[in-house]
Amino acid sequence: KVHRIACIPGDGIGVEITEAAIQVLTKLSEVVGGFQFDFTSFDWSSKAYLERGWYMPPDGIEQLKKFDAIYFGAVGWPDVPDHISLWNLILPIRKELNQYVNRRPNRILEGTKSPLEGCKIGDLDWMFIRENSEGEYSGQGGISNESAPHAMATELTVYTRVGTERIMRFAFETARSRPKKHLILCTKSNAMRHGMVFWDRIFYEIAKEYPDVKTEKMLVDAITVRMVLHPKSMDTIVATNLHADILTDLAAALSGSIGIAPSSNLDPTRANPSMFEPIHGSAPDIAGKGIANPVGAFWSAAEMVRWVGEEKGADALMKAVENVTARGVKTKDLGGSENTKGVTEAVCKEIETL
Amino acid sequence: KVHRIACIPGDGIGVEITEAAIQVLTKLSEVVGGFQFDFTSFDWSSKAYLERGWYMPPDGIEQLKKFDAIYFGAVGWPDVPDHISLWNLILPIRKELNQYVNRRPNRILEGTKSPLEGCKIGDLDWMFIRENSEGEYSGQGGISNESAPHAMATELTVYTRVGTERIMRFAFETARSRPKKHLILCTKSNAMRHGMVFWDRIFYEIAKEYPDVKTEKMLVDAITVRMVLHPKSMDTIVATNLHADILTDLAAALSGSIGIAPSSNLDPTRANPSMFEPIHGSAPDIAGKGIANPVGAFWSAAEMVRWVGEEKGADALMKAVENVTARGVKTKDLGGSENTKGVTEAVCKEIETL
Ligand SMILES: CC(C)[C@H](C(=O)O)[C@@H](O)C(=O)O
Ligand SMILES: CC(C)[C@H](C(=O)O)[C@@H](O)C(=O)O
Repeated sequence: KVHRIACIPGDGIGVEITEAAIQVLTKLSEVVGGFQFDFTSFDWSSKAYLERGWYMPPDGIEQLKKFDAIYFGAVGWPDVPDHISLWNLILPIRKELNQYVNRRPNRILEGTKSPLEGCKIGDLDWMFIRENSEGEYSGQGGISNESAPHAMATELTVYTRVGTERIMRFAFETARSRPKKHLILCTKSNAMRHGMVFWDRIFYEIAKEYPDVKTEKMLVDAITVRMVLHPKSMDTIVATNLHADILTDLAAALSGSIGIAPSSNLDPTRANPSMFEPIHGSAPDIAGKGIANPVGAFWSAAEMVRWVGEEKGADALMKAVENVTARGVKTKDLGGSENTKGVTEAVCKEIETL
Repeated sequence: KVHRIACIPGDGIGVEITEAAIQVLTKLSEVVGGFQFDFTSFDWSSKAYLERGWYMPPDGIEQLKKFDAIYFGAVGWPDVPDHISLWNLILPIRKELNQYVNRRPNRILEGTKSPLEGCKIGDLDWMFIRENSEGEYSGQGGISNESAPHAMATELTVYTRVGTERIMRFAFETARSRPKKHLILCTKSNAMRHGMVFWDRIFYEIAKEYPDVKTEKMLVDAITVRMVLHPKSMDTIVATNLHADILTDLAAALSGSIGIAPSSNLDPTRANPSMFEPIHGSAPDIAGKGIANPVGAFWSAAEMVRWVGEEKGADALMKAVENVTARGVKTKDLGGSENTKGVTEAVCKEIETL
């Protein structure tokens, strides 16, 4: 079976870790067998944008629709204002391909370490379900009379019933599939008295369909405290686009490094391809040095492999990655001394021995 | 000199810690001398609301204007939807008394401990300047066709030039007054391409007035990572109402407990009284048990004492609090075994010996 993968390496370390992911995925298909990947690479980078004035071509979304999945590196480069790069590449893809779920698991991998004192493997095992299509990222708003004394600017947060119901259902299904069957509703409906109250209400409407899932409602600010002081008490969390953006960076740091955390931008209807990307960004400060941690890229790749139906391949890849980190073959952010190439080759070798 | 203080104990542990703060402040004025406090208490609680239908009376704000400062316990109780209690009490006070700054310092106190491995006293010393009057807390928005399939809801984030310039100036003044003279602009202008871009631009406009302050721009999600992994690299941070709400809860947890962190809601023009409150909430789970940590309440009280001009008193109070925590006289959240009364009496005694 051949899986057609669109690769968008993007900017900075996105390029390096996408290369590493392709290398590892190719090895995986050779060793595990029964499937192959057909990679097509798209140079939709900030560098290309500066040269030619665009990231994606006008039919970019249509081109992506022909693939089984999308692998994304990172976007963002100092020469281009971030809101230009994001709103011309990653955000339109998430939105126009109906990838309304951003699923972000976090746990402490073998051989890695939480900065929290006494927090061991198994003490931190979270699954964030991030609303990925609307909320604070609606893109609506504006600036009026910018330089006048009475200038003002707005951002509009939008929650639709359709958008909220579907993310809640996905979150309940996810919570149900995990041993603890526990779902935390992340909210800030005490201060945001319109949209967030709506968000809460729909959560409890959908909760009726899942009587076996234990629910809890918590303010986004209080959740950060719980993550730090009682990591073991949390399991699945559903949160808005912005809240989850913040919480999942924190979660990655608490599990050891922003360099290890994966994310899956999913269209659960499967009408469109889903997109897989590590949550770290383009990291201009270390780009081009070959020292980026590829673990988040590999974990994201494993999520992709699982999504296209290759369970066995996904398990093998994660096993290989953890065997390698367990042996101490790690980049500097994890306390090791390897570079990207070293970790990548170690994972490829490990796959051969599985 | 007599300082007239309006006390709003509010709900849950707010009542217990306000009582403790009054006891300590009274002792402080007796021992240090030269000033006195005249406390007037307002029962604007959720319990009262449930009985009579209102928190503040219609002229509540006018009543508060007659005081030199306001001491606030906590608001929120399970019987009243949070958005009702907040929008009828704490948020109108902050907004109508022009308390446009919420200043929130964090550091590890003597005798307390960060949950971050190896993070010692001095490694975490932050000053958050929170925009406290607009942004995500504008209160604007609505729900349309709530139960229809096409229902939707909104929240409007508003940044005015006036509101943004003044918070930036306060942040730069604060950064300038601290040894590191370093200010981080917290933003999310990559995803929020209208209002947050405006926020960034005004930051850089105001920065020109403060060439001696080193500036750095950082995304809110990335800041959480830095707080966890490189706490020592941060000093003053200016952030929006919501971003700072989230970051300061996290900051409190990283400095040991949500029970120790203070906050000052300031009207820097001094046309209106400012309000001082610990950042922990009403904590229904431990309310009425007499076990709440009063340190955040004492630290907030010290900030109030400083604001009304009693520098010597403020220094004495903080010294007393830290001497007590240093000796291990602490509540359970800090790893101690004392209750509220025990810590309060220890601080009163300590004040006598200073
Ligand atoms: C790149 C950016 C749009 C993004 C986000 O805010 O969603 C990133 O921080 C993420 O978490 O995927
Ligand atoms: C009580 C509530 C309105 C509040 C806020 O969100 O501002 C609280 O969390 C705080 O940080 O002061």
